[in-house]
Amino acid sequence: MLILSNEEIESFLTIDKCIGALEKAYKSWDEGKAINRPRTDLVMPSSTEAGVYAFKSMEAGLYDPPIVAMRINSDIIRWQQQGGRVIKTKVPAAPGNKYVGLVMLFSTATGEPLAMFPDGVVQRMRVASSSALAARYLAREDAGTLAILGSGWQAGSHLPAMCAVRNIKQVNVYSPTQANRETFVKEMAQKVAAEVRPVDSAEEAMRDADIIASTTNSLTQVVSPEWVRPGIHLTCVRVPELGDETIRKIDRLVIHSHQHAPENYIAGFGDEGIESHDAIDIIRKGPAQARESKVEHPFWLESPELRDLVTGRAQGRADAHESTCFLNNIGIGLQFAAVGAAVLSEAKSKGAGHEIPTDWFLETVHP
Amino acid sequence: MLILSNEEIESFLTIDKCIGALEKAYKSWDEGKAINRPRTDLVMPSSTEAGVYAFKSMEAGLYDPPIVAMRINSDIIRWQQQGGRVIKTKVPAAPGNKYVGLVMLFSTATGEPLAMFPDGVVQRMRVASSSALAARYLAREDAGTLAILGSGWQAGSHLPAMCAVRNIKQVNVYSPTQANRETFVKEMAQKVAAEVRPVDSAEEAMRDADIIASTTNSLTQVVSPEWVRPGIHLTCVRVPELGDETIRKIDRLVIHSHQHAPENYIAGFGDEGIESHDAIDIIRKGPAQARESKVEHPFWLESPELRDLVTGRAQGRADAHESTCFLNNIGIGLQFAAVGAAVLSEAKSKGAGHEIPTDWFLETVHP
Repeated sequence: MLILSNEEIESFLTIDKCIGALEKAYKSWDEGKAINRPRTDLVMPSSTEAGVYAFKSMEAGLYDPPIVAMRINSDIIRWQQQGGRVIKTKVPAAPGNKYVGLVMLFSTATGEPLAMFPDGVVQRMRVASSSALAARYLAREDAGTLAILGSGWQAGSHLPAMCAVRNIKQVNVYSPTQANRETFVKEMAQKVAAEVRPVDSAEEAMRDADIIASTTNSLTQVVSPEWVRPGIHLTCVRVPELGDETIRKIDRLVIHSHQHAPENYIAGFGDEGIESHDAIDIIRKGPAQARESKVEHPFWLESPELRDLVTGRAQGRADAHESTCFLNNIGIGLQFAAVGAAVLSEAKSKGAGHEIPTDWFLETVHP
Repeated sequence: MLILSNEEIESFLTIDKCIGALEKAYKSWDEGKAINRPRTDLVMPSSTEAGVYAFKSMEAGLYDPPIVAMRINSDIIRWQQQGGRVIKTKVPAAPGNKYVGLVMLFSTATGEPLAMFPDGVVQRMRVASSSALAARYLAREDAGTLAILGSGWQAGSHLPAMCAVRNIKQVNVYSPTQANRETFVKEMAQKVAAEVRPVDSAEEAMRDADIIASTTNSLTQVVSPEWVRPGIHLTCVRVPELGDETIRKIDRLVIHSHQHAPENYIAGFGDEGIESHDAIDIIRKGPAQARESKVEHPFWLESPELRDLVTGRAQGRADAHESTCFLNNIGIGLQFAAVGAAVLSEAKSKGAGHEIPTDWFLETVHP
């Protein structure tokens, strides 16, 4: 079984490979040649002070390559106010102040575990690649200016991903902390041919923008409805970044998956009326706020999915004047199967990673 | 992260520890201090000839100890006729002709992965311990004779488990192949105080039996309705071993879980009308038979669960004349959390297993 690190994966996994692998996987899924188990979350109090423990899992299988991927997150979560917004943060509570996210790959030919690696690089690459794949169908062909909101992990994958599908000449980067956006811009300028520049406000980032990528961890609106102009393409990594008013202004909306929220299994947090379907709210807002809120069926859930775009069942951009949007509303295991298989293939051809005995994870008994 | 083998686990895990851990976990679950995600199966054709690939997963979390367990099976499955019965077999297609079943444990305090080990020993111990826990409430106090049908992996755990909860003086073992039952009897005679003897027919095994444990891999009836006598206690590892007629004759029935079948995600097998809820049938009978069968809602699903017995919400045996039965209808992740935590605790105190760097599975990036 191959063990890989985020650093190794980052060194060889290209955005083009990811986009290609995802496009093929969505088509296979549509043809009944792939399966996907939607995400489930276990949510319970953590013994770590003031934290909530959440265990997420999802899995998917492909015919070609014959692989199953399981993605697991074992998170301690807290909430904090930051600049008037509620920010959900994962607490790096594992040894060395680290997080725990894993991808495991299995062969459907032999059953054996093939590889195991942290999910960080694959996680951001698959989100950005899905956004870029959608942009290929939804952004104007001549889109040349990209606005990036945020300077974190997802911003760093979305910027090159958008440059991979459109001939981007200029990137305006805004995030609230000046030092963060400047460091980010320096790093990104090495990676893409476009001019990448930091700007002092979100409004300034919007100037001349053809594509807006909101890649923050905000749980409240960051994309103003005013920015929805003719010809614009919007994308986001969390639905709340846009908010209902912004979403309603868009002419053509495509979402990632018709599964809205994970299926939740919840224990604890008192008997004061937190229902099991509120678990997503516990994760978003914390136990106290979850008690006072209702989960509603979002209006945008009837929109076509990314796989409809890829197979041509849903129309992409119809003309230069439409406003379009791709809502990365929830992740699916299929993305990890597609990108995970690409990681394994590249790692094998490059001799990357290190093997541990597969035999540790096999058994002679018929269970 | 601790890696353990089946042999190591078998060397230190006692049936008493398992029964105790399970009893505590069922109570915690009932108090809202544990969570359980029911089993899901991904089912698709395997590229291995004539096989079906199935990926099963389930997970559960406990407050005390603060642990989450995930159990995974990555199986190649085939069907064969054997003595007039259809037997489902898992194909040992992994390197060295092995099977793939795994348990992973995570800390809910830090999120970190704590241990990973093959599921074989834990799998059979948790099934047998659940059967024994049920027998503690359902078998006659003075039960002294045990009939075991089967001489395989589950038979080997059920025999000592039943001896742990009742003062068993004699065990009658029947399985169709004489050599198998004789080898099994020799092995078991070392493990329990009771007299263990092979018999030539199932009918002979039933003579004077107070408890019948059907522990075969048969998908058709092995327990005749005639064997349901006053005072008897029945237990089985698969529902089809009993069959509807036998189950209907029982005075007091308790099942393991109200979840009847796994939630299934299925791809392939042609477009000739296999519905997603037929996946359990694909696994039981093979794709061809699954097309011609309907999944029905079993009548026994309204019976109380094991946790109802443990918490006293459901009555145990009411008198010496009742016939009782425990149907081990489906496994749940909670069993793996309870027994897995016991395994980890014992392994730590004995210094068993070997550590691999936890850091391989951690990351510094906020996913």
